[in-house]
Amino acid sequence: MFETGSFNLTDDAAILTTPPGQQIVITTDSVIAGIHVLPGATPQQFARKLVRRNLSDLAAMGATPWRYTLNIHTPCELADDWFTEFAATLREEQTLFGMVLIGGDSTSGAASIHTTMTCVGVIEGTPLRRNAAQVGDDIYVSGTLGDAAYALNLLQQNLPVDAALAARYHAPSPRLALGKMLHGIASSAIDISDGLLADIAHICSASRCGATIEHTALPLSPWQENSALDNATKISFALSGGDDYELCFTVPPAQRVALKKLSAALDLPLTRIGCITAGNKVKMTDAGGNILPVTATGWEYN
Amino acid sequence: MFETGSFNLTDDAAILTTPPGQQIVITTDSVIAGIHVLPGATPQQFARKLVRRNLSDLAAMGATPWRYTLNIHTPCELADDWFTEFAATLREEQTLFGMVLIGGDSTSGAASIHTTMTCVGVIEGTPLRRNAAQVGDDIYVSGTLGDAAYALNLLQQNLPVDAALAARYHAPSPRLALGKMLHGIASSAIDISDGLLADIAHICSASRCGATIEHTALPLSPWQENSALDNATKISFALSGGDDYELCFTVPPAQRVALKKLSAALDLPLTRIGCITAGNKVKMTDAGGNILPVTATGWEYN
Repeated sequence: MFETGSFNLTDDAAILTTPPGQQIVITTDSVIAGIHVLPGATPQQFARKLVRRNLSDLAAMGATPWRYTLNIHTPCELADDWFTEFAATLREEQTLFGMVLIGGDSTSGAASIHTTMTCVGVIEGTPLRRNAAQVGDDIYVSGTLGDAAYALNLLQQNLPVDAALAARYHAPSPRLALGKMLHGIASSAIDISDGLLADIAHICSASRCGATIEHTALPLSPWQENSALDNATKISFALSGGDDYELCFTVPPAQRVALKKLSAALDLPLTRIGCITAGNKVKMTDAGGNILPVTATGWEYN
Repeated sequence: MFETGSFNLTDDAAILTTPPGQQIVITTDSVIAGIHVLPGATPQQFARKLVRRNLSDLAAMGATPWRYTLNIHTPCELADDWFTEFAATLREEQTLFGMVLIGGDSTSGAASIHTTMTCVGVIEGTPLRRNAAQVGDDIYVSGTLGDAAYALNLLQQNLPVDAALAARYHAPSPRLALGKMLHGIASSAIDISDGLLADIAHICSASRCGATIEHTALPLSPWQENSALDNATKISFALSGGDDYELCFTVPPAQRVALKKLSAALDLPLTRIGCITAGNKVKMTDAGGNILPVTATGWEYN
């Protein structure tokens, strides 16, 4: 699990020598029992959510995972098995994503389980940022939206959930390959952790622009499409459910063909959901391009 | 509080370009209410303990503080004032120690306050390690030992505590200048966070050697010396109280003059407390060099 730079975790700190021609990218995120995972989450669910939540941020910068530190705070009564299983899953995840643990700390006596990971990625060339979206750029998202929120909704009600749908909440796929391939194509990118609308607003704020989203263009999975949910709930999960860990990115229209090829190469849907506009507002349109009226609770969908 | 590499914290991750000729050193530590600080700790105490606990690890490597990330998990009911004061102290600390915040996350809804800092330091040349102590090396410690444990003992009993003594617990001084100046002098170094005996054992384990400590040589502060504590308690605080954040380091005897000069230059006591031996055990001697018998609770002091 360890390597040279960490001195097998026997020293006070780890030394990192940046690979030639690369820059280091650092991001950090926590997973807390009952907040980012369900109260009774398994150690496997804990480890996967922690790793993937962090790696999604690296994906949004177009970076490659490299090293990480781990802080783990646990109640005294937590069984040894929990740690064994957590460590085993972490080992699987770091092999899967090509990362190495270089340090951390553990504390017993906490009221609930808190885990924090700080990921160090490497990047060659210009990172993807949030601040260079241009008026007229297309807005794209990867995959489908709202699955994690829908899965969580079912899990919280103890309703049956398809395993693959549950995995969209428990073990999201950080879009690392996509992030790397968006270098030179996308003008800005962000990962969808808070929910599409909140995250597009981050791009608009950093790029000093507005955005228009066609709500009928939002890519929904068959789980949502075929569900008994009403239309407003589906759209609400897709727009503000959060925890999707898909990428939202902006691209000059001249790149549409490049994106079609990229989607095919990655076997990952990349859907145009709107465009960047002047101003500073995020607006919603119907299929005909008419701006939807804003109500007290959101937009008035047809 | 922010700078370019963090993009004013508006992006998913921060980019770091390692300064030419330097290596990056990473360490991480947490501070949890009621565990690393007292249950009712002020935001100032929280911020200082968090920063200094981390920087002490950089000091032990001979590194210079550079950048850091912060994770903060708080109960919903925590007053806004707490955050304002925590941030203000953090700002003072980062100015004092020359660090810049480059990212982090915050989560509300935790059962108690958990904070985690991941510090990135820079280092030129060979870092101080734990694994190169040689048989015959002198063992030194900086400052005085056991003050934090003594202060905590008084604070927990609600007894009056001299403010400067309380500060030894609440706001330890990371020995950064010492760590940097030990390059080329010390054969190994560690910071005393767990307690002298535990931390010397870490050096012995990494360097495959033993150690002999003269218990009468342990540097105690006037607070402890002049206290009504019995001798065994004083020695126990010094040996295993922890939270000292002094440096313990090993040095070839030929460097004794260099260390005297270093102590004078830094205005910091550097005390020889024993030597590195063959074997793998940590032993204790009296002033005459006689090995003290080990009892069920520790050593049998005269």
